[in-house]
Amino acid sequence: MTTIPIIEKILSANDRLAAENRAALDAARVFAINVIASPGAGKTSLIEQTLKALAGKLRIGVIDGDLATSIDADRAAAAGASQAVQINTGGDCHLDAVMVQQALPQLKLDDLDLLIIENVGNLVCPASFALGTHKTVLVASIPEGDDKPYKYPATYRGVEALVINKIDLLPYVPFRMEYFRQGVETLNPGLAAFPLSCRTGEGMPAWLDWLAGQRRK
Amino acid sequence: MTTIPIIEKILSANDRLAAENRAALDAARVFAINVIASPGAGKTSLIEQTLKALAGKLRIGVIDGDLATSIDADRAAAAGASQAVQINTGGDCHLDAVMVQQALPQLKLDDLDLLIIENVGNLVCPASFALGTHKTVLVASIPEGDDKPYKYPATYRGVEALVINKIDLLPYVPFRMEYFRQGVETLNPGLAAFPLSCRTGEGMPAWLDWLAGQRRK
Repeated sequence: MTTIPIIEKILSANDRLAAENRAALDAARVFAINVIASPGAGKTSLIEQTLKALAGKLRIGVIDGDLATSIDADRAAAAGASQAVQINTGGDCHLDAVMVQQALPQLKLDDLDLLIIENVGNLVCPASFALGTHKTVLVASIPEGDDKPYKYPATYRGVEALVINKIDLLPYVPFRMEYFRQGVETLNPGLAAFPLSCRTGEGMPAWLDWLAGQRRK
Repeated sequence: MTTIPIIEKILSANDRLAAENRAALDAARVFAINVIASPGAGKTSLIEQTLKALAGKLRIGVIDGDLATSIDADRAAAAGASQAVQINTGGDCHLDAVMVQQALPQLKLDDLDLLIIENVGNLVCPASFALGTHKTVLVASIPEGDDKPYKYPATYRGVEALVINKIDLLPYVPFRMEYFRQGVETLNPGLAAFPLSCRTGEGMPAWLDWLAGQRRK
């Protein structure tokens, strides 16, 4: 009775700020995604390859969240992001709507078609904090193993698209795709899924088509 | 001024319970490790292979923490754990000393030489919560990438041993071992490190020797 009301307050404050972020994005007709994943699943590589493929066609901004360093924003800028901002959370295990609200004024939204927000590498906590983006994209990866939907159900349940990265490693690791897919389908029926390899480029076109098809202007 | 005191209280309460856990382990002369890692780095596989190798020599108990399912404790029991307990955190992103304190009475500590606690798959939050174990072991893995020490410094700084898993994948992914090791050495000089593959068994003997050498009875 003492703890739950406090949690509800924090979440609703975050949700209120997320709604403000969404309104700012919608006013500028910028489509925004929140990319979440385990550390090392390939969020940054996916963003890098997406920028390289689409930078000529779409103006893409990137907000990168990390505990420390600007490695990811540097990579995004080098790969062709129109604008890139790094948020260092200073130890926090996820981005929240407040941090994004502080980052947004550093971007010229009117000059962007798409905003990609790369969350902190963490398969648990980011799922609980809306940022104001239009869709949340989960990046899974083959070497993580096929049991992850079963072990992280809330995360798999709460996303609108699933990238299954590192399919080039399928010959080298035990990964039962059917078992994995079955877990996903149970939690999130009909979820758009994109098996691909950021390294070889296999499967990238379907992901890029889906993403480019979301643009609002 | 309003938030910090609350955080200090939570941490010191956890630390107090962790000290109680440690005392219970010491009284039974059980050496205990807290195994932390990203999702899919191979904590469960490491524990499985460790049990298969040492089950004839040492009596090993396992406490498995997960958001959901008993997949890991089932695997530990099948691999030869003398005793196995599953903690489902119900969404919590880490184990804490309270959860471990609830699990300990379900084990007969006098009948164990070694206790392995597998934390929730998360490279951020578990680092902040002492459990009462004697050492924290971080499992990194090759496909996660070589920049993880730089991006998760607090976690790399706070551990007493490092397993570098999935070295069998080195030929198939870009991973600069020197860059990785340099990051680790800067944060945690002299850290005991064990590059190995749970899949092929390469490198396992050094890890097993280190672990078996820690027994207290």
